[in-house]
Amino acid sequence: MSDALTLLQNHGQATITYLQEALVRQTDAPPRLLQAMDYSLRAGGKRLRPALVLECFNACGGSAVGSYPSALAAAGAMELIHTFSLVHDDLPAMDDDDLRRGRPTNHKVFGEAMAILAGDAMTTLAFELIAVDAEARLVGPMVAELARQTGPVGMIGGQVLDMDSENQALALPDLQRIHRMKTGALLMASCRLGALAGGADQNKVQAMGDFGRYLGLAFQIVDDLLDVISTAEQMGKATGKDADRGKNTYPILLGLEPARLQAQQQLATALKILDSFGSPADGLRSLAKFVVERSN
Amino acid sequence: MSDALTLLQNHGQATITYLQEALVRQTDAPPRLLQAMDYSLRAGGKRLRPALVLECFNACGGSAVGSYPSALAAAGAMELIHTFSLVHDDLPAMDDDDLRRGRPTNHKVFGEAMAILAGDAMTTLAFELIAVDAEARLVGPMVAELARQTGPVGMIGGQVLDMDSENQALALPDLQRIHRMKTGALLMASCRLGALAGGADQNKVQAMGDFGRYLGLAFQIVDDLLDVISTAEQMGKATGKDADRGKNTYPILLGLEPARLQAQQQLATALKILDSFGSPADGLRSLAKFVVERSN
Repeated sequence: MSDALTLLQNHGQATITYLQEALVRQTDAPPRLLQAMDYSLRAGGKRLRPALVLECFNACGGSAVGSYPSALAAAGAMELIHTFSLVHDDLPAMDDDDLRRGRPTNHKVFGEAMAILAGDAMTTLAFELIAVDAEARLVGPMVAELARQTGPVGMIGGQVLDMDSENQALALPDLQRIHRMKTGALLMASCRLGALAGGADQNKVQAMGDFGRYLGLAFQIVDDLLDVISTAEQMGKATGKDADRGKNTYPILLGLEPARLQAQQQLATALKILDSFGSPADGLRSLAKFVVERSN
Repeated sequence: MSDALTLLQNHGQATITYLQEALVRQTDAPPRLLQAMDYSLRAGGKRLRPALVLECFNACGGSAVGSYPSALAAAGAMELIHTFSLVHDDLPAMDDDDLRRGRPTNHKVFGEAMAILAGDAMTTLAFELIAVDAEARLVGPMVAELARQTGPVGMIGGQVLDMDSENQALALPDLQRIHRMKTGALLMASCRLGALAGGADQNKVQAMGDFGRYLGLAFQIVDDLLDVISTAEQMGKATGKDADRGKNTYPILLGLEPARLQAQQQLATALKILDSFGSPADGLRSLAKFVVERSN
């Protein structure tokens, strides 16, 4: 557990430093736009996606045969896409949240128009970083993967399904589909980009993607559980809102204990996939366990 | 003039057909999200950016030495980015427009949340199309160019400056900077992507970019002029709104006739750049003149 926290902190710090430098490189951009982007990027969070990129890079032997600059670009891109999605999700027209990670949401500080534009700019910057900083032969596969898992069949598509299913009773397979797209797609992309940067062959990229997919399901179930049982103070955002909104969640559909069991089963499946990667995947194992055992 | 209309129609049709097919390829995406994207993509407009991509491709001898699939991917990507910017600009938190190209705006039909997400999804699809459909060696340069000209130092940055300058008197250089970013950046990117797909060397890519930059200035001046002198019926959107909003425009800063003269001068500079491209650039010349002489 402490290993995971150290990994998250170190990889998170490397990624944020890289992103700060990338913002500085956008000379001639309106300062207030960069401030709005910087505000949400700094706001903290676990930095899980960058850590997954960089530990999948390590698990594939990336330090020997891979391209660390490509991995760092991918880590930055994943954090940008994740942060953009939070900024847009928090908007009044979407979830209408005032608080995120214990601080006022972007539109509360910078206004709604700027929050929309800051989110838009984070998306384009994500692709710019990969195009500029990743190894030339990796740019195509990385951009294709990131765009697909972010877009209509990935996170954004999942967000639409989630929105449309509020106040409707869902069957478990439908809920799983939403989770797979809304959360799983970006975790899967993080793992696949890390593997690509690490010089992995197609089989290993596929395996890492599968690992991310199962981990994503476990992650979302735990998120749902924490919404039910945590206090707002622990989570740094309003809790208990899922039920208030009539959202479909694992604990609501299955009950608390069966939901916990599901999370453990998905984790076990994810860990099984790592068996063939041996000890270089130790960091990744530690991260995966942390995801399921965390309390915020 | 009729040449330009034919070019716009043909290139526009090829691009829209390509984009429709791309939407169909997003199997498993929520149908309503694809409908919202399709609604605004179909809604018409001049299709100037795709036509610029494909005529810059032609001007560089692309049909002999270039990659048409790369040019078509770039044309589709430019139209997606342009359309996303309109959908987000029309939102209540931004310009709050109910009418666009003679039809209700995206959020009026699909709701605000869906309009935000549809715009987001158009952005990621733009990058996906280039990554998947353009020639591998062109993906890096194309994604870098598109992302940069869309992001904080390009269109989105220009949008922020424009927003922040409402109800403030601007000097001409400040207004030109806003136009260069808000409109010029995407026209420049269209031309540079077309040249890249056409197999142009660095000098020609640069020349095409400069052509697009001057054309962009002319385009924006004419847009400002049309806002003053056209009827809503001709424009398919509300007119006279710039002055109502306290926006800085060329006719307001310079007066009508000097603004018209400025547009002609920028056009002349743009056309001069095309001299070295000979007759393959005839379509591009025709498009450039159309941009300045159009009445809607």
